Amino acid sequence: MIQVAVMGHGVVGSGVVEVLLSHHDSIAKRAKEEINVKYILDLRDFPGLPYSEKFTKDFEVIASDPEIRIVVEVMGGVHPAFEFVSRCLAQGKSVVTSNKELVAEKGAELLQLAEQHNANFLFEASVGGGIPIIRPMVQCLAANEVKQIAGILNGTTNFILTKMIREQMSFEDALALAQKLGYAERNPAADIEGHDTCRKICILASLAFGRHVYPRQVHTEGITGVSLADVEYADGFGCAVKLLGCTHRTDDGTVYVMTAPYLIPRESQLAGVDDVFNAIMVEGDETGDVLFYGKGAGKYPTASAVVADVIDCAKHLEARKYLSWADGGDGVVADYRKTAVRKYFRVCASSSAEAAAAAEKVFGTVTFLSRADAPAGEIAFVTSAAETEEALDQKCAELAGAGCTVASQIRLADFEASHI
Amino acid sequence: MIQVAVMGHGVVGSGVVEVLLSHHDSIAKRAKEEINVKYILDLRDFPGLPYSEKFTKDFEVIASDPEIRIVVEVMGGVHPAFEFVSRCLAQGKSVVTSNKELVAEKGAELLQLAEQHNANFLFEASVGGGIPIIRPMVQCLAANEVKQIAGILNGTTNFILTKMIREQMSFEDALALAQKLGYAERNPAADIEGHDTCRKICILASLAFGRHVYPRQVHTEGITGVSLADVEYADGFGCAVKLLGCTHRTDDGTVYVMTAPYLIPRESQLAGVDDVFNAIMVEGDETGDVLFYGKGAGKYPTASAVVADVIDCAKHLEARKYLSWADGGDGVVADYRKTAVRKYFRVCASSSAEAAAAAEKVFGTVTFLSRADAPAGEIAFVTSAAETEEALDQKCAELAGAGCTVASQIRLADFEASHI
Repeated sequence: MIQVAVMGHGVVGSGVVEVLLSHHDSIAKRAKEEINVKYILDLRDFPGLPYSEKFTKDFEVIASDPEIRIVVEVMGGVHPAFEFVSRCLAQGKSVVTSNKELVAEKGAELLQLAEQHNANFLFEASVGGGIPIIRPMVQCLAANEVKQIAGILNGTTNFILTKMIREQMSFEDALALAQKLGYAERNPAADIEGHDTCRKICILASLAFGRHVYPRQVHTEGITGVSLADVEYADGFGCAVKLLGCTHRTDDGTVYVMTAPYLIPRESQLAGVDDVFNAIMVEGDETGDVLFYGKGAGKYPTASAVVADVIDCAKHLEARKYLSWADGGDGVVADYRKTAVRKYFRVCASSSAEAAAAAEKVFGTVTFLSRADAPAGEIAFVTSAAETEEALDQKCAELAGAGCTVASQIRLADFEASHI
Repeated sequence: MIQVAVMGHGVVGSGVVEVLLSHHDSIAKRAKEEINVKYILDLRDFPGLPYSEKFTKDFEVIASDPEIRIVVEVMGGVHPAFEFVSRCLAQGKSVVTSNKELVAEKGAELLQLAEQHNANFLFEASVGGGIPIIRPMVQCLAANEVKQIAGILNGTTNFILTKMIREQMSFEDALALAQKLGYAERNPAADIEGHDTCRKICILASLAFGRHVYPRQVHTEGITGVSLADVEYADGFGCAVKLLGCTHRTDDGTVYVMTAPYLIPRESQLAGVDDVFNAIMVEGDETGDVLFYGKGAGKYPTASAVVADVIDCAKHLEARKYLSWADGGDGVVADYRKTAVRKYFRVCASSSAEAAAAAEKVFGTVTFLSRADAPAGEIAFVTSAAETEEALDQKCAELAGAGCTVASQIRLADFEASHI
């Protein structure tokens, strides 16, 4: 019998306890040993639950119990999760977490601590919820060098963008609907401003390229600047607008990482990923594009990913999993402003003709897009050649100097040509 | 240093050797030990290769060398692969294979042999080529009970069907193109008659439900009966025609397994899987639908999956992987004829009105489909209620009795409602 503690009894934590109970026998068979939840740590009271005797408000009870071999951390946030997880690992207890913020901020440190104490630190559920992605990347793609990763990593924003594309909802209405349906939190900033996606692409980039990438090193744009007008122009251009986390290794060995909305050609498998679904495309040098798709969040999908890690820990109490990356630091992440991209622009001026003339004067040949009922003076276009973001910013300033207002700008995903 | 033998130097075998050489350093880092190809077994001569000194024509050289810890079997076919693999496992050598025929016919036996001798028998590359599927199913979905699996598992047939859908090619022309491009073999029977798909769904069904499912127990239809007319009718009905391998557990505990073309609603992620790509949808009870997508064949994708298994073996020379299932036998596989399905029918009679009247008389309410330039006397329809295949066969006989010829019939995939 392996004794487990679950720290946090929120949505995911209660799901973990329920899955461990409801699948008790099949899990015991797979883990080759029975798994028992001995403690649940939460400061709140949960009267009336069938397992109420397991609750404790005192972390020391868990830390000081040598019977506890595996600890599940599903509290969220960096503190005190980091201190608790560090203590557990330092005592040789394996830790499983779904906490992307913790892994994105402290992953390298915690992986090293786990290694020093011959324990496991696993976090399959931190990216893509119930979609297997961390382990397949490490194990199945082990014979590949990862070339690039692009993922729709946040279900809330993807739901909002899908409603805008499919039902011509405004961003505000779609957000309100997401909140009503429980997909978005009352304070939706972490989702709609891209921070959640950023944390997840940091984890994947660290894993793929071997050095820790910190969220503060990553240029992050959310979807609050994406309007229904942009979605309609994109649609007319054969593209869907999706919030992506992207990463690839650059020629100078640094790692390019970006969180931003992109125009994605409809032929791409990513363009068809709708509603709250997530998908992660991994390009290996030998295997080509591989895509993983499923529900990226939700109580039971996420809980089942956590429990799968618990089973893996139970099977490898002694052995270490080969999951690790080195510290990050300056020089790991590429300066995104030196990277060449193509962009979509929506521009307003006193007349469409004036705006179009200014666009061609500044950018040379561009492809103009159209949408029904565009207001007078509004145009939209995509640039032809990829240019550095620095150069594009300069050209935006020139546009402004010519009396144009840049209402929005969105990068084009170019999976085929090279990197995004 | 871990010594490896590669049995078979065909497309995949030469790819395995190349990947092990070209990624030597990164593989050594991941395996925590250097991996060296000591022997390559092939009856043919390959003069001029940089590693020609590694070739042997004598299996005994490999079997009798205690230094060889891992053997890669990429010869294909059941014999002598089965005898060679059995000998290796019995000596405690781990075996990695991409040979779906071997696994589908002898998997339970070889897994048991591996277990008895504390060796590993891994076969990630046998299903989905470079797509990680076996390991994610076993590990990441370990906390789930698998409810159903549906996969586009054969790239050749998917290429042919894509050409029919997208470019209105006939089956014969699309097959000829696939052969010209090297996607189809000169004898394409294993692909187009569904045997390759059948072997792969047998492996997945065995893995998901724990008892060996043999290809001979599975009703298998290929795509030779699918005409351009059927594809056009399906298109008008909002569906794509795809060759699927499907499996689910039935209420009486038996396993339903089917290989056949299906009409798939365009909203399904599987409908958008085109060309030589494969995709496997796995529904877990907790995680919902998860989809794995990528190149299902090809030298380097398949080779990289084999090498990933070699790395896994190298990291677990002592430990056993938890991959196993029990023997099959009578009573494991459900009688597909007792299962209720909806079907598409294309029927010819002396007049369309007569055919339609007969269809409604026999099947009750049906949905009629249309296509451009349908010849006189041809109709197509889908049935409304799901009925057992037995009952549908009986009704087909009634149609024939009413002067109609059933030109083709294809099952409808109904992922949402319940099982396919």
